[in-house]
Amino acid sequence: MREVELGDGDRRVLVVVVDKGEDAVAAVNEVAQRHDIRGARVTAVGGFASADLGYFEREKRDYRTIPVREQVEVLSLLGDIAENEGKPALHVHAVLGRRDGSTVGGHLLHGEVWPTLEVIISEVGASLAKRVDQETGLALLAGTTAP
Amino acid sequence: MREVELGDGDRRVLVVVVDKGEDAVAAVNEVAQRHDIRGARVTAVGGFASADLGYFEREKRDYRTIPVREQVEVLSLLGDIAENEGKPALHVHAVLGRRDGSTVGGHLLHGEVWPTLEVIISEVGASLAKRVDQETGLALLAGTTAP
Amino acid sequence: MREVELGDGDRRVLVVVVDKGEDAVAAVNEVAQRHDIRGARVTAVGGFASADLGYFEREKRDYRTIPVREQVEVLSLLGDIAENEGKPALHVHAVLGRRDGSTVGGHLLHGEVWPTLEVIISEVGASLAKRVDQETGLALLAGTTAP
Repeated sequence: MREVELGDGDRRVLVVVVDKGEDAVAAVNEVAQRHDIRGARVTAVGGFASADLGYFEREKRDYRTIPVREQVEVLSLLGDIAENEGKPALHVHAVLGRRDGSTVGGHLLHGEVWPTLEVIISEVGASLAKRVDQETGLALLAGTTAP
Repeated sequence: MREVELGDGDRRVLVVVVDKGEDAVAAVNEVAQRHDIRGARVTAVGGFASADLGYFEREKRDYRTIPVREQVEVLSLLGDIAENEGKPALHVHAVLGRRDGSTVGGHLLHGEVWPTLEVIISEVGASLAKRVDQETGLALLAGTTAP
Repeated sequence: MREVELGDGDRRVLVVVVDKGEDAVAAVNEVAQRHDIRGARVTAVGGFASADLGYFEREKRDYRTIPVREQVEVLSLLGDIAENEGKPALHVHAVLGRRDGSTVGGHLLHGEVWPTLEVIISEVGASLAKRVDQETGLALLAGTTAP
């Protein structure tokens, strides 16, 4: 993984290149933590050799895992970074493309990168705070933290 | 729905959290109108309890409705806000993910949010104007409005 | 194709409207070259009358073409622009939606626009360099160019 931090002030942009064999979620979380990113848009394209996607089941209040065990194009990786309990919290969804063009998607739990993942993280200009939602048990975006 | 407006000048960023039961399209349109957004990129992730997607039929010059009546992940919500007849005009497409990871997508007509939709609206720095295209009857992006 | 360049300094935004019958890839590449874009995020929505998508085959080290020969919604077009051998290099993936809402996706090789494609290109603030990866033969994002 290699990253570059561009610009200064409250709207930095980070470009992250995740390398073969690395986990996309761990890599982006690590970069976000190292650069103290607490409010940003995240987009990426590239490829995965393997991935675990999630679907949130209303009844069980938990994610059902959708395993993807084949080389896929990362057609879209989209989401945000907020702050939860003092640490950056990544929330990204992915649409993956198979050999025949068919797609599979979900909440991104893990993605083993191959041959690359090109990630752009752009700060929104404030810290975005998460708060636990009683009904689902999920930490949902609540707004900005006190200035 | 809660929103925060970040930054000043001609490139504001709005973060909008759409709550359970609200319609995503109505919520974003309302926020865009209240903050006078007339040229922006829109991205979002979250979930819908139900949605209506559209596919534009060339022959009929109208949208065919694709109803989605199940809990889905909003894998990608992407598009723009321009100005049409003096008001903000939202144009967003969505890819939705079912329990088994299969996907369905289209022009977003309605989306009943559950449990959340996290929207980021980033201004491009000018008003984007729409103009009615004679062949399709659609209001398409024409360029910027006169400065 | 019509485009507007917004802002100055090292984070310009380009809004590009690709017209009926034009190829999306050629149009964006031409605009990127004319405006000397060498590091940017790209997003777009719209429609294609026809497209060629690619899936990178690990064994063959080449793209398999997935032809799409029907009117589709461009649900998501996402990627980046970097610099390769002195010229802008576009890397975008697309998710396309059929009449019944089913989707097909891949690396975008060609897309014949109908009725429109609304593209937003936002610079990240530096030139992003590509370098040929020996294992795949692909030009992958390497980082930023020397300042």
